[in-house]
Amino acid sequence: MEQFVKDIFINALEKMIPMHSYMEIKVMDINFGKVKLLFPFKPEFVGDIRINRLHGGFIASAVDASGGAAAMTHMKTEKDRVSTLDIRIDFLKPGQAKDIIAEGTIINRGTNVIFTEMKIYHPETPEIIIAKGSGVYEIRTYENENNN
Amino acid sequence: MEQFVKDIFINALEKMIPMHSYMEIKVMDINFGKVKLLFPFKPEFVGDIRINRLHGGFIASAVDASGGAAAMTHMKTEKDRVSTLDIRIDFLKPGQAKDIIAEGTIINRGTNVIFTEMKIYHPETPEIIIAKGSGVYEIRTYENENNN
Amino acid sequence: MEQFVKDIFINALEKMIPMHSYMEIKVMDINFGKVKLLFPFKPEFVGDIRINRLHGGFIASAVDASGGAAAMTHMKTEKDRVSTLDIRIDFLKPGQAKDIIAEGTIINRGTNVIFTEMKIYHPETPEIIIAKGSGVYEIRTYENENNN
Amino acid sequence: MEQFVKDIFINALEKMIPMHSYMEIKVMDINFGKVKLLFPFKPEFVGDIRINRLHGGFIASAVDASGGAAAMTHMKTEKDRVSTLDIRIDFLKPGQAKDIIAEGTIINRGTNVIFTEMKIYHPETPEIIIAKGSGVYEIRTYENENNN
Repeated sequence: MEQFVKDIFINALEKMIPMHSYMEIKVMDINFGKVKLLFPFKPEFVGDIRINRLHGGFIASAVDASGGAAAMTHMKTEKDRVSTLDIRIDFLKPGQAKDIIAEGTIINRGTNVIFTEMKIYHPETPEIIIAKGSGVYEIRTYENENNN
Repeated sequence: MEQFVKDIFINALEKMIPMHSYMEIKVMDINFGKVKLLFPFKPEFVGDIRINRLHGGFIASAVDASGGAAAMTHMKTEKDRVSTLDIRIDFLKPGQAKDIIAEGTIINRGTNVIFTEMKIYHPETPEIIIAKGSGVYEIRTYENENNN
Repeated sequence: MEQFVKDIFINALEKMIPMHSYMEIKVMDINFGKVKLLFPFKPEFVGDIRINRLHGGFIASAVDASGGAAAMTHMKTEKDRVSTLDIRIDFLKPGQAKDIIAEGTIINRGTNVIFTEMKIYHPETPEIIIAKGSGVYEIRTYENENNN
Repeated sequence: MEQFVKDIFINALEKMIPMHSYMEIKVMDINFGKVKLLFPFKPEFVGDIRINRLHGGFIASAVDASGGAAAMTHMKTEKDRVSTLDIRIDFLKPGQAKDIIAEGTIINRGTNVIFTEMKIYHPETPEIIIAKGSGVYEIRTYENENNN
């Protein structure tokens, strides 16, 4: 992927999606079918203060954001949009009150849908997977939009 | 569930969990194995500004929060803690830029785990399900905690 | 659904799909978006002989068969075919060495995909759900078939 | 894993589980936390005769059997039994009317549960994944058995 294309995606992912702006997501790397996103720690991402563990919902957000970002690299025009059909998340290890990285990868492209897999880890321990995800995404254009 | 017990859970769910405080979750109803949570709309929950649609990650957070809250009603002591083992979310309809309600219900209790199901809808259209979830949760005490 | 249409589907589901013929599936009821299938018990469906429990894989087959059958009712021509994109199954209770019923229901129809939910129970205890499933299916015609 | 231990597991997996005997599953390899199973093709595993494609339910059975077999390698006594809590399966490519291999791997061990991942492919094309699975299993002994 050429740098100017990367820059377009980075700008879209970091600045055009309100939830990503709020989370201050940084795109560490992006290529066709593969993204690596940094989620800087914020105190409000904690779920259990007794053990300072990240909330499962925050991890789920990171899983969905990285899967969706990987799917976005297959969009063809600015009018396309990506929607999540479904995701599954396995919570393997408790996330600590620190930054996390979310990697999203396209593993298969069907006629209408894109299969992805995602993994979440802390930057300093990439070998310890906190959570893994599987997601199926759809790319549609505004034109063929219906009420679904 | 007696009112003073409800009050303890409501306080815990609304004020003791940083992510819930940030989201300003309100417990609309709680009973053993069943909760109904209100997530007031915030602009940063939007995923696609072109169509003003809620981010899938925000919906995923609401799914996990409501499933975990339902599981919490089966805790026995203050030392217990609930962790999500896995969740699946089906995104049936786009969520609009408005409040959502998340209902979580325990559908089965095993020896070690709790099966839940969740649904997400806008308050004014409870018959239109935006997303549905299935989650498996575990209740553990700090004492038998290991590195998982 | 008119009876002659039901008969076409019943014939297809019971006799045209080798795995269904082998399993001796009976269609108990079928309508647009909803099917009820009977799976008569066979000794080879057992997973654990010590407790005479059905194999999880057999239950998974019944979940997929009933979700796919519900999706089939939305086919438009004989050239259409249904494929499973993904399924999730929650195993709530052990299945006993007896017949099971699998119900499949379409809960949403998107542009390209069909969302279903399924439940499995023994005929004499429909209130005890052994397993529940969520599945996403796609309908495609042979013409637009590619190598996916 | 020592050979005599492997032999015990191979015997259990191939001969003591009725569904595996019927399917004529062969254990190609087994170690702690990892198994590789061969499912020889049978005509009744076909789902769509027009394109000679394997039934999704058969693939789901292979996913569950291999995840359960991986989990079994963590049993401690003959009285232990493995049950599937939940599985997800992504159907990436159509399976052809041929033998398949199912690999199951434990990816995490919690206090009470075992996380696994599975992949399905044809023996001659191990690089083309037909389906992938995620499953959560539980090991229990007969003694602490309750009605779940």
